[in-house]
Amino acid sequence: MSTSTSSMSVEKQFMPENRVQQVELLNSINDLHGGVVVNIEQPMDSKAFSPLLRASISQWRQQGKRGVWIKLPIEHANLVEAAVKEGFRYHHAEPDYLMLVCWLPETTDTIPQNASHRVGVGAFVMNNQREVLVVQENSGKFKGTGVWKLPTGVVNEGEDLCTSVIREVKEETGVETEFIEVLAFRQSHKSFFGKSDLLCICMLQPRTFDIEKQDLEIEAAQWMPIDDYAAQPFIQKQELFNFVAKICLSKSDRNYVGFSPLATTTASGKTSYLYFNNQNMKHLVTSDNQQ
Amino acid sequence: MSTSTSSMSVEKQFMPENRVQQVELLNSINDLHGGVVVNIEQPMDSKAFSPLLRASISQWRQQGKRGVWIKLPIEHANLVEAAVKEGFRYHHAEPDYLMLVCWLPETTDTIPQNASHRVGVGAFVMNNQREVLVVQENSGKFKGTGVWKLPTGVVNEGEDLCTSVIREVKEETGVETEFIEVLAFRQSHKSFFGKSDLLCICMLQPRTFDIEKQDLEIEAAQWMPIDDYAAQPFIQKQELFNFVAKICLSKSDRNYVGFSPLATTTASGKTSYLYFNNQNMKHLVTSDNQQ
Repeated sequence: MSTSTSSMSVEKQFMPENRVQQVELLNSINDLHGGVVVNIEQPMDSKAFSPLLRASISQWRQQGKRGVWIKLPIEHANLVEAAVKEGFRYHHAEPDYLMLVCWLPETTDTIPQNASHRVGVGAFVMNNQREVLVVQENSGKFKGTGVWKLPTGVVNEGEDLCTSVIREVKEETGVETEFIEVLAFRQSHKSFFGKSDLLCICMLQPRTFDIEKQDLEIEAAQWMPIDDYAAQPFIQKQELFNFVAKICLSKSDRNYVGFSPLATTTASGKTSYLYFNNQNMKHLVTSDNQQ
Repeated sequence: MSTSTSSMSVEKQFMPENRVQQVELLNSINDLHGGVVVNIEQPMDSKAFSPLLRASISQWRQQGKRGVWIKLPIEHANLVEAAVKEGFRYHHAEPDYLMLVCWLPETTDTIPQNASHRVGVGAFVMNNQREVLVVQENSGKFKGTGVWKLPTGVVNEGEDLCTSVIREVKEETGVETEFIEVLAFRQSHKSFFGKSDLLCICMLQPRTFDIEKQDLEIEAAQWMPIDDYAAQPFIQKQELFNFVAKICLSKSDRNYVGFSPLATTTASGKTSYLYFNNQNMKHLVTSDNQQ
């Protein structure tokens, strides 16, 4: 990383004499943690970017700034190398941008980590004949195994868990459902590019029963007697699947209580769902927030 | 993106006549979903990389490949721009690498999404005097508010939830604990760089009681009567905090059941924790997997 001195000499080289005191710097905004965020919005030549970045770092150091964030839209991929050369590392990326970060002080880096988990959903949907909605997938590790499994999917960014699982069931099987409970969840690691996975097994109540399977991901879909589902050798052999099947059986006998969603609103008007055991909290959910 | 024709002309330009049939291509390995993964491990000039990538894309297209992944270590940041110019977009990034992806067929893109959630933990630790372990933070939105809150933290990549919360309590307060249950969890959106957040409120049993607070993030820590904690105006005003406090109170009266962890092992020897209501499943947990 450049020192204050070398940054000044670069500035002099690029600035007219009478503007040395008004050094051109990257626009930045302060964050809540003593750092700054730079949004690169206009195209820039990497040769012009490097000295600007060096001069800005020098100034942020003098100001005692801590974490410096650069958000680089993918159109400005030409600036990635220059930022890395000035000491920045990657923090995270989305399809349309790359976020780089640099910790300026000598103290321990307290830069928050990147998103670490995918949240998945598995749907336990049972009709009045104790038949459970199951699918066979046409790609991935279950392809061609003949295993009938619960419909599963991934929660989209910004999507509520309880909405997501209804969407996945509808997409994969055409069946419409209502969310009842999270029955259990499993955390596993190194599931996908080193990331962890949190899979929530949810119970849904079917509202329609005709199956119209999606062709892209689903080989077959059917209503299957729950005992046949649980008796499949694959389910029996895998400790986790076996246990989840038992929880589903227990739920089907109505003697299991999972976590139900409750919409809560923050002071700023944001809605978040809280999932909890509402059988043990009925006195509170029905009262008007009196303790 | 280049066509097959233009890619061949580039190859001819760079290859000796007698090697036209042995076109140099990027090394790649097949994935489980009909795609390929390229790991760039050696330094390369971006001028050499572009034609190689174009020729490789041409070949993968002919082979009917679908998603193409390029894993670019940060040392090779010089190649980012070239990959983007050939039609690649960002998929995700970690401190030391950037993953780019390109979907070759005309069909709908089924590229899995990036990790979308951070998993947080909040610790409800109560001693025999019905005092709960609380902290004041010295940065972030609670800084200087005087609010006493439950210790919270973020689950590291690859870390088990039930280990993470014990670590956070120890780091912030010096108190050693044992994991009991997940009492509830909350999903919220746009918490951090547009990502979602899944906060698990966990009950822990204290094993030690002397507080030794961490200075970096924690302003103060203490054991506080649970009723005083719940009565704080901030907790009363925020619907979510208020509700969580009620769940904690309910748990402290021993009439609330959350989700307990059970370690399960996959056929490949990977251990994953399943969290579920074990009060309703006692007959199964204690039996030897008989249904």
